[in-house]
Amino acid sequence: MKVGLDVMGGDYAPGVTIDGALMAAAETGNNDRIVLVGDRSIIEELLHKRDADKTQFEIVHAPDVIRMGEHPIKAVTKKPQSSISTAARLLKSGEIDAFTGAGNSGAMLVSAMYSVSTVHGVIRPCTATFIPKENGGQSVLLDIGTVPDAKPDVMYQFAILGSLFARHILNIHDPKIGLLNIGEEEEKGNILCQSTYHLMKDSTDFNFYGNVEGRDLFNEKADVIVADGFTGNVVLKQIEAMYDILAKRNLLDDYTRRFNYENYGGSPILGINSTVVIGHGISTAQAIKNMILLAVEMYNSHLSDKIRDAFLKYSQNQ
Amino acid sequence: MKVGLDVMGGDYAPGVTIDGALMAAAETGNNDRIVLVGDRSIIEELLHKRDADKTQFEIVHAPDVIRMGEHPIKAVTKKPQSSISTAARLLKSGEIDAFTGAGNSGAMLVSAMYSVSTVHGVIRPCTATFIPKENGGQSVLLDIGTVPDAKPDVMYQFAILGSLFARHILNIHDPKIGLLNIGEEEEKGNILCQSTYHLMKDSTDFNFYGNVEGRDLFNEKADVIVADGFTGNVVLKQIEAMYDILAKRNLLDDYTRRFNYENYGGSPILGINSTVVIGHGISTAQAIKNMILLAVEMYNSHLSDKIRDAFLKYSQNQ
Repeated sequence: MKVGLDVMGGDYAPGVTIDGALMAAAETGNNDRIVLVGDRSIIEELLHKRDADKTQFEIVHAPDVIRMGEHPIKAVTKKPQSSISTAARLLKSGEIDAFTGAGNSGAMLVSAMYSVSTVHGVIRPCTATFIPKENGGQSVLLDIGTVPDAKPDVMYQFAILGSLFARHILNIHDPKIGLLNIGEEEEKGNILCQSTYHLMKDSTDFNFYGNVEGRDLFNEKADVIVADGFTGNVVLKQIEAMYDILAKRNLLDDYTRRFNYENYGGSPILGINSTVVIGHGISTAQAIKNMILLAVEMYNSHLSDKIRDAFLKYSQNQ
Repeated sequence: MKVGLDVMGGDYAPGVTIDGALMAAAETGNNDRIVLVGDRSIIEELLHKRDADKTQFEIVHAPDVIRMGEHPIKAVTKKPQSSISTAARLLKSGEIDAFTGAGNSGAMLVSAMYSVSTVHGVIRPCTATFIPKENGGQSVLLDIGTVPDAKPDVMYQFAILGSLFARHILNIHDPKIGLLNIGEEEEKGNILCQSTYHLMKDSTDFNFYGNVEGRDLFNEKADVIVADGFTGNVVLKQIEAMYDILAKRNLLDDYTRRFNYENYGGSPILGINSTVVIGHGISTAQAIKNMILLAVEMYNSHLSDKIRDAFLKYSQNQ
């Protein structure tokens, strides 16, 4: 397979993106190739400086860059030669099988959704992240910001997407789905959660555990935590803030160290007809490496096909 | 002043509530008296066992108890002789000036709101908590669960209530109000936050800072963090979960130790015509003590009157 990397994306690009690509190349299989998308002369110079074998990569020239602060839709339209727009085109044409980058996440989302379209039956694609469980393993939290005003049917689909992701990427046989709420009982919560609970409670599309609360984010109750994009984003950024504080204060141990986003690399977009992983703007080389490896794993596990199959079945049953 | 304590409320009641009352009595001023509400024989026996001078308290007999799992409205109606219902009556009649307890929080809320009513002009009373700032001091987070589906005008009023609380209880001269959102810019967020931002941005009722994110919960940007009750509750319980993990793993230092809810004692209800502080179900004696002291401080600072005056002015300007 071929995984594209936006070399120009990220606060420390292009130096650390190249470093991350080199680290990833050393770990990927022989059949997996990294396609570096960005200014060719910059890429070649950086590889040369690092004494790297440039034949291990493919390079696709893209002279323009979309900056972090730019308006996603405007930037994608105005800059067809940007690394993000170019990578999205390569994804559409099949020249790459997966697209990764730590640049303007809105622009990545927009260009990916335009170029490969949404899986048939999926109302709104979403973005997911990992949360380390205290007793080992990870859970999946979704959505983390793509759909701030999710409706109950959209939340229901998040559960299907999260369940497939947990099964095929985290290898959890029958993932337990928790609805992030403010009480354990069915009637608790805001209107969104009450309605969503009602939809989920007798589901045969996934294994519904029930409500989980903020205090359950790190325990064993659920393998997948479903939230609207607003709440999920607040939860994720609160975790990041706490990790930064613990790191600064030398309060990391074998568990709290696992909250470092670098371990996870990036957030996959779920519900589109391809494999796209969006990295954190502050990505280090380690984070870039893990972002690329996650995309490779997602592609090689045929997650996108499995999501398509599941939603075909789901749409037929509606 | 007289502060009522629901002796029967809390997972470890009545033993630890009596211990907490004794600790609080040792710290309150001469003009502040604690009124113990609950089964008289149990209270007297516990005081006797502790060799305590029972004349430092008043005791009001209430033979019945509302348990944690009971439905708030049903329980309050069915059990007029419960400690919670009795304390609410004392609050209404003026025999106590403030009401504290760590029992069924829904029942406390319902009975308090029935007995003393909402401040004129306040659409929905709310509940607040403290968040320790990393650089010292605290901020106020509200709402934390009373209004899971808040509307923009209700959120606006949370800002007024939080501002008064921060000024008069935390002694912050001109508290900065942050709207908890998922991006810094005005147009970010869910529909609720977009509309709320629009209402708040030119406010003269409080000092609006702008949006804050999950990553800003512990920094200096805001003194008051306004959220709907759903999001606020998730944030608070996530903090508590993280604190428990850090405590268990011996990762407490001078900052992370401050996340212990015991330091704050309880959550005040803001927007009603009296002083009510609801404690955590798992309250220890230390937490009970601090809950009582917070109520005393709130009463003695005339916060409730100041809220009434502010909403009189606010209603006239509408």
